[in-house]
Amino acid sequence: MFSERVTRLTSSLVRDILAATQQPGMISFAGGLPAPETLTLPDWSAVPATALQYGPTEGEPELRVAIAEQARGLGIACDASQVLVLSGSQQGIDLVAKLFIDPGTPVLTESPTYLAALQAFELFGARCHGLPLTPAEGPTASDGIDPDALRTLAAETGARLAYLIPTFQNPSGTCYSASRRAEIARAVRDADVALFEDDPYRELVYEPVDRTPICAHMDGGSWIYQSSFSKSFMPGIRVGFLIASPDLIGHLVRLKQATDLHTNRVGQMLALSQLRSPHLAEHLDTLRATYGAKRDAMQSALTRHFADLAEWTPPPGGLFFWLRMREHPDTGERLDMRALLPEMLARGVAFMPGEVFFPSGSAEIGYARLNFSHASADEMERGVAVLAEGVREGDLRA
Amino acid sequence: MFSERVTRLTSSLVRDILAATQQPGMISFAGGLPAPETLTLPDWSAVPATALQYGPTEGEPELRVAIAEQARGLGIACDASQVLVLSGSQQGIDLVAKLFIDPGTPVLTESPTYLAALQAFELFGARCHGLPLTPAEGPTASDGIDPDALRTLAAETGARLAYLIPTFQNPSGTCYSASRRAEIARAVRDADVALFEDDPYRELVYEPVDRTPICAHMDGGSWIYQSSFSKSFMPGIRVGFLIASPDLIGHLVRLKQATDLHTNRVGQMLALSQLRSPHLAEHLDTLRATYGAKRDAMQSALTRHFADLAEWTPPPGGLFFWLRMREHPDTGERLDMRALLPEMLARGVAFMPGEVFFPSGSAEIGYARLNFSHASADEMERGVAVLAEGVREGDLRA
Repeated sequence: MFSERVTRLTSSLVRDILAATQQPGMISFAGGLPAPETLTLPDWSAVPATALQYGPTEGEPELRVAIAEQARGLGIACDASQVLVLSGSQQGIDLVAKLFIDPGTPVLTESPTYLAALQAFELFGARCHGLPLTPAEGPTASDGIDPDALRTLAAETGARLAYLIPTFQNPSGTCYSASRRAEIARAVRDADVALFEDDPYRELVYEPVDRTPICAHMDGGSWIYQSSFSKSFMPGIRVGFLIASPDLIGHLVRLKQATDLHTNRVGQMLALSQLRSPHLAEHLDTLRATYGAKRDAMQSALTRHFADLAEWTPPPGGLFFWLRMREHPDTGERLDMRALLPEMLARGVAFMPGEVFFPSGSAEIGYARLNFSHASADEMERGVAVLAEGVREGDLRA
Repeated sequence: MFSERVTRLTSSLVRDILAATQQPGMISFAGGLPAPETLTLPDWSAVPATALQYGPTEGEPELRVAIAEQARGLGIACDASQVLVLSGSQQGIDLVAKLFIDPGTPVLTESPTYLAALQAFELFGARCHGLPLTPAEGPTASDGIDPDALRTLAAETGARLAYLIPTFQNPSGTCYSASRRAEIARAVRDADVALFEDDPYRELVYEPVDRTPICAHMDGGSWIYQSSFSKSFMPGIRVGFLIASPDLIGHLVRLKQATDLHTNRVGQMLALSQLRSPHLAEHLDTLRATYGAKRDAMQSALTRHFADLAEWTPPPGGLFFWLRMREHPDTGERLDMRALLPEMLARGVAFMPGEVFFPSGSAEIGYARLNFSHASADEMERGVAVLAEGVREGDLRA
C-alpha cells in the first residue's frame, strides 16, 4: 500500500531524543536550539495587512532583493531572481533532493554530516558517499575535505551532487580553511558536480576565521547556497532561503510551488525587517558574546570532566562540540555512544550519539555531539559531569 | 544530472496566469484568493515569546487538541494524536504523495479535480485515473462521483488511494449529496482504498447542504482528512492541518519532519486564537455574507453575458463557478479555452481554462473556472463582459 520510500524512513532515534528533551528538568545537549534569552518578541508593525493574502512562490520581492544584496557582499555573484525563500532551510534539502535524486542516485557528503540531510537524501533513495574531514596541522581539528578525494569519489561513484557545510560544520564544528574553499570550488567544477552549500551557522563566529562561501569561488557551474534565519534571528518563524545558479533556480521554484505554494509571509516580513534593522550588527554581536561565553563554559566543563575520556577541539563558531572518545586501554575499542544514551536520558541528560552522523556503511563508533547554546552554565557543568560518569561506567563494563 | 521527477514538472501555464494577475489593472477570476476586505491584522498578543523557538513536528499541542475537538464535532472519530499541523494544505498533498506514490502508482481522483493536486501526484510519478462527477436531478450540477465506478476503477487499476474534494469541489463547485457521502465511505472500504479527503472550502457555505465529511462515515480503514485556515482565516500564515487514521499518522509525521521540521509557530498561535475566538461564528457569518453576495453578483453577470454561450450551476459554496461552453452550432465542438487565454490576458482579464483540471488522458475541451471571491462587483461585470466577447469571437473563428 505504501510507497517504496516509506521503507527508507529511518529510525526514530532523533525524535525520541528530542521528545525526551521536552521532559521537565532534562538537561539537553541534543538539539541545536537557540538560547531562549536571545529570542524576544518582534516588532509586529513590520507586518502589513497585505502579508495575510497569498503571495508569490519565490518569496517577498523586497526580501529577495535584500538577500541577494547580502550574498553579493559575501562574494556570491547573484541577483534577486536567483533567490528562493524557504520554509526553513530543511525545505531546501527536500527541494534539492527532489531535483537531483532518484532511487540509487549517488550523493557526496562530508563524513560526518548533518543527520537530517542524510535522512532526507536517503528518503528519496540516494546512496550517500562520505568524504572524511581530514586532520589539520595546528589548532584546528580539520581544514575540510580533501579536494582530490572529492574528484576521485565523484569519478568512482558517478555522483553529480555534493552537499557540504564548510563553515562551523554540523556536527564537527570544522571551518574549512581559505585555501581549501577555493580548491573545493575548482574540484566540483572539474568533476562536473553541483555544489549544495549549507551555511546556517555563519553568523555565530567566535574566532577570526575565513568564512567566504565556497559558492563565492565558483566561476560558473551548478550551485546552491542556502542559509537560514533560524540561528541568527528566530527559528519559530521557519524562514530560510536558497540562492541557485541560473540553470537550477527555475526548477527549484516549481518544485517549491508543488510543495507548499509559498513560505508564510508574516515570517518573511519579520526577516526583512531584521535584515534592514539598524540594530542588526549589535544583535549579532550580542548573540556572539552570549554563545561565545557558553562555548567557553562548556570547554571548561569538558576540560574538568572529559580530559582523560575524549579528544576535541573548541569550535571557532556554530553550536556544537564534537567529541571523539578515547580507545579503551585494554580492548582498543571506543565506547558506542548510542548504547549509552538510554541510561543518560534516564539520568536527565540528553546528547546526540555521534555514530548517527556518518553516512550508512562507514560504521564509525565512539563520537558524541554536544550542543552548548541551550543549557545554562549551571546545567552545563552538571550535565557534562553526569555524561563523564556514564562514559567511565561504560568503559568499565567494556 | 536531474532526477527523473524533473521531466514530470508540468507546464507553467498556471504560474504564467498567476503572474499575469499581478499586473496593475488586471481583473482576475483565476486564483482562489480571499477578498482583501476580509483580511485584517490579527491580535499579535496571541503569540507568546515561546513561539519563536523551534517546536514539535506534529504542531502546537493546544492547536492539535482544538482541531481534534472541532473534527469530532463534524463526526470524525479522532483524538489530538492523529492531528498533524501543516504548512498550508498543499503540504498535505506533498506528504500523502510521499507516503503512497512511486513511479507508476495508480491514484483515483475526481474528473475534473484540483490542478495542484494532479501536479503534485504526477510529480511523484502517479498515474491519475479520473472518476467523472455524475449529473444529478434537480438544482445541483452533480451529487458526486459514482461509488460503483470507484469500485470498478479501483479493481481495474489496482489503485489504493483516492483523492476527493466532496464539499464545494474545486473546480466544479459540486457538493456531494448526503447519501453519496455514506456510499463513498462504503465503497473505499470495500475496495481497500485509502481515502484522502480535502476540505478547504467547507466554511464558505451559501445554501443549506449536507457537509458531513466522508471521513465521518468511515468505520475503520485508512483515511486522511485535511483542511486549511487559508479560506476561513488568512492564507499568508500558511497553516493547514490533516487528521489521519492511526495506521498512517506516524509515517506522515516523520515525512513532515524530513520536509520542513515543523510549521511556523506564529501562524499556529494565530490559528489557535482564531479557533478559540468568541467572535469566530460572527466572523464566518460575515465571510459567508460577503462571498454569498459576490457569488450572486457573478451569477447575475453570467446570466447577462453567458446565457447563450455556456451552461453552469450556481455553486452552493466555495469560491468558483464552473462553466461548460455550448457546442458550436455548425461544428458541434466546444471552444478550447486554453487557446482563448492569451488574448483575454491581453485584454486585462485572467481566468482558468477548465481543460487543465482533467487528469491527463481524458482530454475534455471547453470548460472554464471563474473565481468570484477576489474581484469587486464592478470588475466582475466588466470582466465577464470581456470574456463573453472573447468566446463569441472565438466561436466565429471556429
